[in-house]
Amino acid sequence: MTAEGHPAIAGLVQAFARLPGLGPRSARRIVLHLLARKESEMRPLARRLAEVADQVRACSRCGNLDVSDPCGLCRDTRRDPRLLCVVEQVADLWALERSRLFKGRYHVLGGLLNALEGVGPEDIHLSALLARVEAEGTEELIMALPATMEGQATAHYIAERLANSPVTVTELAHGVPVGGSLEYLDDGTLAAALKARHRLRTG
Amino acid sequence: MTAEGHPAIAGLVQAFARLPGLGPRSARRIVLHLLARKESEMRPLARRLAEVADQVRACSRCGNLDVSDPCGLCRDTRRDPRLLCVVEQVADLWALERSRLFKGRYHVLGGLLNALEGVGPEDIHLSALLARVEAEGTEELIMALPATMEGQATAHYIAERLANSPVTVTELAHGVPVGGSLEYLDDGTLAAALKARHRLRTG
Repeated sequence: MTAEGHPAIAGLVQAFARLPGLGPRSARRIVLHLLARKESEMRPLARRLAEVADQVRACSRCGNLDVSDPCGLCRDTRRDPRLLCVVEQVADLWALERSRLFKGRYHVLGGLLNALEGVGPEDIHLSALLARVEAEGTEELIMALPATMEGQATAHYIAERLANSPVTVTELAHGVPVGGSLEYLDDGTLAAALKARHRLRTG
Repeated sequence: MTAEGHPAIAGLVQAFARLPGLGPRSARRIVLHLLARKESEMRPLARRLAEVADQVRACSRCGNLDVSDPCGLCRDTRRDPRLLCVVEQVADLWALERSRLFKGRYHVLGGLLNALEGVGPEDIHLSALLARVEAEGTEELIMALPATMEGQATAHYIAERLANSPVTVTELAHGVPVGGSLEYLDDGTLAAALKARHRLRTG
């Protein structure tokens, strides 16, 4: 007998507690919230989880998650096939889609090169990316990878592998986050922002 | 088309974002975490949710949540029937059970009296409590209600309703939380702790 009574309840609490950002305390709160809303929230959540698990798969072309393969973004003929944006994970693709600014296609690497942790080019979707650039006649490959050692190493590795290709390789700008104050910014970002400064007016 | 692609994914993100303590950002993270672990976490979570929704109900005697009615605590003959502990909600019962200190039975009110929000005695499980005290021959009724205006008002109301009963009514002590520093403690708690001070040695 656990503090949550029946093992079925305790097991559900533990399942929630394993999710990212949650712990035992928030998991207990969520389970009690759901038990008080069985028909309006608990059963619908169970159904949605099972449905999404059944229907959603990774796009075999770009790695995005969707109910169709190729995914909706790959099949959308309004998207510019000349622009290909490389991201580490689907969460980054979602972030770019929320901005509604990018109108090309994506490629999800599913990881970053990391020599220390033994992640090599064959462990991420890299050869598929190189094949796409050639097959789809990509004109610009935009590296939207994290501004970390691994992100930068991966971006440079990809650029090098494409040295003999006519594709242009770009990366997102580094600088002061919009709305951010200088005071709390790290030195690396400040240095990058200073180096990439641009004219407001020509004196 | 949403930023999360198919509406099924967006709907699941929204369902998680409605849970207490979660928002859109943490919900997206959880859904991607689950989609990367369909068989090991996502389907089991769906199954557990449906099972618990099917099996778990409120105990008709004490209000605890369990797969049986009366619940395991009410049926456990090793628990002292002379002690009855009144809590606001099942979460409080779980907290007391985790401490493993209380060996009596519980009564879950399911709310607190609140004149401002129009919660009266008939809106919480109060008459059932009074009936239990009489029927079960309770000797001590322990008020483990929140140390808020509503909690205290509810405790006093119950004590008053039992003025002509032989039952002893007690409440949890107020004071400095164990491990807590005085510096950040509110005045009310400090005053209560000072008022309830006890001797360490007699000089």
